[in-house]
Amino acid sequence: MQIVITGGAGFLGARLARTLLAQGSLALDGGPAQAISRITLVDRAAAPADLAADARVHSAVGDLNAQLADGEAGFWAQADAVFHLAAAVSGECEADFDLGMRSNFAATHALLEKLRALGTRPVLVFASSLAVFGDSPAQPLPGVIEDHTLPTPQTSYGIQKFIGEQLVADYTRKGFVRGRSVRLMTVSVRPGRPNGAASGFFSGMIREPLAGLRAPCPVPDDTPVALASPARTIEGIVRAAEASESQWGPRTAMNLPSLATTVGEMAAALGRVAGPQALALLDRTPDPAILRIVQSWPGRFNAARAKALGLMADADFDSVIRDYVRENPDAVQQKLQA
Amino acid sequence: MQIVITGGAGFLGARLARTLLAQGSLALDGGPAQAISRITLVDRAAAPADLAADARVHSAVGDLNAQLADGEAGFWAQADAVFHLAAAVSGECEADFDLGMRSNFAATHALLEKLRALGTRPVLVFASSLAVFGDSPAQPLPGVIEDHTLPTPQTSYGIQKFIGEQLVADYTRKGFVRGRSVRLMTVSVRPGRPNGAASGFFSGMIREPLAGLRAPCPVPDDTPVALASPARTIEGIVRAAEASESQWGPRTAMNLPSLATTVGEMAAALGRVAGPQALALLDRTPDPAILRIVQSWPGRFNAARAKALGLMADADFDSVIRDYVRENPDAVQQKLQA
Repeated sequence: MQIVITGGAGFLGARLARTLLAQGSLALDGGPAQAISRITLVDRAAAPADLAADARVHSAVGDLNAQLADGEAGFWAQADAVFHLAAAVSGECEADFDLGMRSNFAATHALLEKLRALGTRPVLVFASSLAVFGDSPAQPLPGVIEDHTLPTPQTSYGIQKFIGEQLVADYTRKGFVRGRSVRLMTVSVRPGRPNGAASGFFSGMIREPLAGLRAPCPVPDDTPVALASPARTIEGIVRAAEASESQWGPRTAMNLPSLATTVGEMAAALGRVAGPQALALLDRTPDPAILRIVQSWPGRFNAARAKALGLMADADFDSVIRDYVRENPDAVQQKLQA
Repeated sequence: MQIVITGGAGFLGARLARTLLAQGSLALDGGPAQAISRITLVDRAAAPADLAADARVHSAVGDLNAQLADGEAGFWAQADAVFHLAAAVSGECEADFDLGMRSNFAATHALLEKLRALGTRPVLVFASSLAVFGDSPAQPLPGVIEDHTLPTPQTSYGIQKFIGEQLVADYTRKGFVRGRSVRLMTVSVRPGRPNGAASGFFSGMIREPLAGLRAPCPVPDDTPVALASPARTIEGIVRAAEASESQWGPRTAMNLPSLATTVGEMAAALGRVAGPQALALLDRTPDPAILRIVQSWPGRFNAARAKALGLMADADFDSVIRDYVRENPDAVQQKLQA
């Protein structure tokens, strides 16, 4: 079995690749498990060294639109499954409209057209986002988001992801791909460097203090967030590829499970795990641009479809932080609480 | 004031032009009424003779994508309002996927990009469709469609219209246009020739027997339909342009009012208006392809937002037929019932 991951050198893409390589096989679309012979990571960045060192990994470095236009890129034709994670993130898309339309809208359409033209009908997992939901004074969100709640995106990123879901649904209905759209929750704790996502601080406010660095916390304590750890997020993405069409159900995107918490509760968990000296590294400097985006997102979901597939939310944020510490020992300078 | 109507030589576009020319002025976006100096009809077909004879009418004949690419076409820059009605219809889009993606998906995006590049921020009324709602075994529609019901399109046409709504919403949020998306109901009775719409028979089953011609009725009597006369449909389109942003409310598309009826009730109305000899001209020949599309559409709406704007549904289908007869005397051969 051959797999393509767009955005494959990014944090989630690389973690997905590591997960798949570690399990060695994948059972696609309700079928039997098959050994994974090759994973192609399509990304503007080179693959992380550990992945590049694996003989099963192929790295296709370049812009996704260019990679799709490359007639020589045989890995598209050989893909049994494509995980489409490449995207410009929320803050970038709000600041640069053309970037978002090119990277999210046009590239997703181009990927679907490529797969359609090949006629290979791969499983396609599309990473959408809770950002398709947006609260606004003219159209307040309900207190709990259900699988059938109408998305009313309040960002260009949210609109572009929602359009991607519609395209995946129709290319699936027409039989061009076997599409599954999953709406990722706010992922925390992401390792590595900050990115342009408006949600980036949800990770930075934990990651940086753990490393002994100051970090901004630009929104009030009572800001709600529907959160998932990297591990739970990857579980959801893999499960989407495994589910048969009948297990999956409607072609509408599936909300992944999330832990309903708040920024204040996240900070309190940081204090419990890493002590008051870590907490003292948080700079409570309001950022109206980030607040406007993050406040429009919902904080509470009833992810009934995902639960029916056996997917679970994280139990609590303390254990999410402890998982991060265990997985990223080199990035942690704080002495942890007992 | 200058106006552009895409699909302006089509039935609805031409009727909209006639309505606007007759009233002579238009009050856009909550502002004062202003005299209409020019209406440009963009269409692959030439304008009907009565419109072409009006000095205020300009006819731009050609494919919409080509008209948008034409740097000399100054009418785009001068438009205070654009009514975007041009589209490939449902049956065509289901039979020819590329046609729908080009005519509905790409052209709507190109129109929005054109208006954004001009920086003129016109009012843009986008004609979406009840076809964004689709019933399926995996995701049944509720019995009554509300303004906040999640669309789950079951046709490429419905997907393309729903994507157009999302684009219009975001280009509006960003301040590039002042967009209003209205979801048109099934329009009946359309005059003229049959087209490729799966819903075409809803007009043909009345129009043809009135003209003394046989007509197919390809679905069962109990098939529900959410219907609006041409007059009510044009009222909704014009009202969308007139409403201020605050009157309009959320950027989500607005369902226009509809008469909830059935094919059997429509046939009975035909019999009441035009007698049993008209009814006898209906061929009850099932067409599974049409039935599959039409059955997926909802039959009953609670158009609360539209009603709050003062829009009304037709009272009954008998009067819709009588309006058609009055407006199209040359197309009616049957002697009407008293």
